[in-house]
Amino acid sequence: MRVTVLVRPKTGIRDPQGEAIGRSLGGLGYPVSSVSAGSIFDLEIDTDDLKEAERLGTEMAARVLSNDLIEGFEVIVG
Amino acid sequence: MRVTVLVRPKTGIRDPQGEAIGRSLGGLGYPVSSVSAGSIFDLEIDTDDLKEAERLGTEMAARVLSNDLIEGFEVIVG
Repeated sequence: MRVTVLVRPKTGIRDPQGEAIGRSLGGLGYPVSSVSAGSIFDLEIDTDDLKEAERLGTEMAARVLSNDLIEGFEVIVG
Repeated sequence: MRVTVLVRPKTGIRDPQGEAIGRSLGGLGYPVSSVSAGSIFDLEIDTDDLKEAERLGTEMAARVLSNDLIEGFEVIVG
């Protein structure tokens, strides 16, 4: 079953990659006032159980895919 | 207006980051058969025009945020 995990910087945490991209886009003339940069992970989990896929996805997101100090995550099943 | 750009490796293109994470998760005992790793960008664009936001988001995604040789992108407005 496919599970997608979105990992984003927490509000108020510095995001140097997003800031650099924002400056680049501004330099190119794009009207962009802020950019936040995060990660997306598409996992294929060996289960047909939706609840189990969500449980595993959440556990992997918290334990491996994100850093709780500076990032939040969202798990989308299916 | 908020625009989110999802950038993912193209099918068939090697994804070393995803492969490494897949091995780590497998090593921890998670039943994961594949992992793909990409980027998510949340942009705040200075326009109230939905079509214009989509046009700008698509242009920035193609020109700056993704590498057409190895990545595809998806633009979500709002």
